Amino acid sequence: MKKITLLGSTGSIGQQTLDVISEHPEEFQLVSLSFGGNLELGSKAIKKYKPKFVAVKDKETFSAIQELCKEVEGVTYSYGEEGLIEAAVYHDADLVVNAVIGSVGLVPTLKAIQAGKTIALANKETLVTAGHLVMEEAEKHGVDILPVDSEHSAIFQCLQGENKKEISKLIVTASGGSFRDRSRDELNDVTVKEALHHPNWSMGAKITIDSATMMNKGLEVIEAHWLFGLPYERIEVLLHRQSIIHSMVEYHDRSVMAQLGTPDMRVPIQYAMSYPGRLPLPSASSLQLWEIGELHFEKADFNRYRCLQFAYDSGKIGGTMPTVLNAANEEAVAAFLNGKITFLQIEDWVEKALEQHKAVSRPDLETIHKVDLETRRFVGSLLS
Amino acid sequence: MKKITLLGSTGSIGQQTLDVISEHPEEFQLVSLSFGGNLELGSKAIKKYKPKFVAVKDKETFSAIQELCKEVEGVTYSYGEEGLIEAAVYHDADLVVNAVIGSVGLVPTLKAIQAGKTIALANKETLVTAGHLVMEEAEKHGVDILPVDSEHSAIFQCLQGENKKEISKLIVTASGGSFRDRSRDELNDVTVKEALHHPNWSMGAKITIDSATMMNKGLEVIEAHWLFGLPYERIEVLLHRQSIIHSMVEYHDRSVMAQLGTPDMRVPIQYAMSYPGRLPLPSASSLQLWEIGELHFEKADFNRYRCLQFAYDSGKIGGTMPTVLNAANEEAVAAFLNGKITFLQIEDWVEKALEQHKAVSRPDLETIHKVDLETRRFVGSLLS
Repeated sequence: MKKITLLGSTGSIGQQTLDVISEHPEEFQLVSLSFGGNLELGSKAIKKYKPKFVAVKDKETFSAIQELCKEVEGVTYSYGEEGLIEAAVYHDADLVVNAVIGSVGLVPTLKAIQAGKTIALANKETLVTAGHLVMEEAEKHGVDILPVDSEHSAIFQCLQGENKKEISKLIVTASGGSFRDRSRDELNDVTVKEALHHPNWSMGAKITIDSATMMNKGLEVIEAHWLFGLPYERIEVLLHRQSIIHSMVEYHDRSVMAQLGTPDMRVPIQYAMSYPGRLPLPSASSLQLWEIGELHFEKADFNRYRCLQFAYDSGKIGGTMPTVLNAANEEAVAAFLNGKITFLQIEDWVEKALEQHKAVSRPDLETIHKVDLETRRFVGSLLS
Repeated sequence: MKKITLLGSTGSIGQQTLDVISEHPEEFQLVSLSFGGNLELGSKAIKKYKPKFVAVKDKETFSAIQELCKEVEGVTYSYGEEGLIEAAVYHDADLVVNAVIGSVGLVPTLKAIQAGKTIALANKETLVTAGHLVMEEAEKHGVDILPVDSEHSAIFQCLQGENKKEISKLIVTASGGSFRDRSRDELNDVTVKEALHHPNWSMGAKITIDSATMMNKGLEVIEAHWLFGLPYERIEVLLHRQSIIHSMVEYHDRSVMAQLGTPDMRVPIQYAMSYPGRLPLPSASSLQLWEIGELHFEKADFNRYRCLQFAYDSGKIGGTMPTVLNAANEEAVAAFLNGKITFLQIEDWVEKALEQHKAVSRPDLETIHKVDLETRRFVGSLLS
């Protein structure tokens, strides 16, 4: 029985993590969870899984959830940043699934690593902004960082039983997002609704927009760099509309290993949870390639998808540059979702934020935090 | 330094095995080899690799090769079935690459296993006719049977770091062979020359015809059954024209692992030789999926490819039935290549041979040999 902490339980990944736990009550027990302010989904999870520890965003939610769940006995509640960290290091858990959205996921990850927990990581910002700190701590404490993203999970699966020294390159596949069939000229007047319509995956709003700009793929390239320890020159992005091949690894004998499946996030989530074994997931669909008929591949166009170029550039510069990339993008996407800027302005804002920043190498947490705030302030100033 | 025995050095797989040895003189040393009657290629290999032991088909070749290679010192020569066995068990070798064509490859494999040699197996008949004996001996002597066929190598690579108990099925891909774009009606008057034109792979004549009838894929299914210990119900054949995905494994979490690459037999040959590691193979082409653009998949049609159905049926019946399948096919293909029967008669002859046979279960070597001869005689009698 693996004891699980789930950070970010009401988001898309969080809910699917709960599905996986439900499918295997004899394998997994949810002992600690966090959520922001979604009382409906939060209280449902508490009533169903009866965790021993619950952390929420703020004092208001803290009071409300205790009232809503008063019939559930033996739960300790907490809130705020401190509460999230308490949830992350909860003593009785073996594995922490970090499905928190945004840079708030970073400190809890580091604390959980220091507490010796295995990490199933869905929070991109953790590696994008502090990959050097996270991987160092993980090595120091002998902790596995298991990817939950479908692409990184695919690469991780392709590495099983292999020697990392024999890798020639990683090939990260990309669907191309909502606007893959439009030219740049056709992107000027796209609406939020259009942008939120992802062709293959059902995901949260932020990540769906990031798919459309391909910033999502850019952040994944930076994550892959940290997770698998390869230079950016040996990480490729390949456009693959159908999202069936989730990613690949080429070895130096020219053999390419790939992981495939129907688009279902429960598969990589469960793999991280069951690793190193696999558990049945009969409710997922079996891939029938003859039904799909064709898989398509195209070169990624760095002029069409400027955010992808920004990500490679930021990653290569390193230091605080990826923090700026990520913070500027978060602010710009929020502004787009709120109808304040156009879709193409997301790229412009990110570009401006990168241009005005001088990278600090090997930043500590405080510096990362400061650069994150400064970047958000700078991007905010572009609006006024 | 791995010391290599190569049985069948002048055939297509044998020649590519020599290429791999040439690419890695610091890793591999050829100490023992066999060939049939091809004096030109045989003498070339002896002069280049200076093996310590050489076995040839017959006394005539035995005399001729010694004359041709008299300047190469320290080589012991032998011939006939006995010579082939001596080559297979040559004391100084670690790994035996068995690239002999036809059922003559069986006894040397068993003897090499008993001598504790790791086996890189390209000889189909070994597993098709005596899979039960070979796998039993391999287990008894703690010997690895490493597949050389691209499909089985792909599956084997997809199994690294995995637990066999978590496999749900094997998916063996098939190009469909020379006549995949023709209906059955259009197969009546095809010529030998047309049949020998394989769309993707450059291979020997027998295996190219077997690709066109899909008997090759049927034999591979039987081999996969023995190599990986799965029932026939859990081995699927998938038509995939481009031969880029060499085969796949689906696990019970619905995750599918695949091995891909440009069609180049040196990759699986080298993998078997370098296993468990991989060595660089810079002269092989790196797979560029965006250049290929599309991969296609279709259901395998068991009415269109009757030999595939015969293979599944024979495999499920087991015992001596696959021996009949293989021997009848060898004779029928030879008759087709010699212009004595039509392409579609290959199937008819195999079917007739299977119909007239009553399977003996768990046959010993003698029984296998007897059934093999009887089948060849029966098929021969169909001509007269």
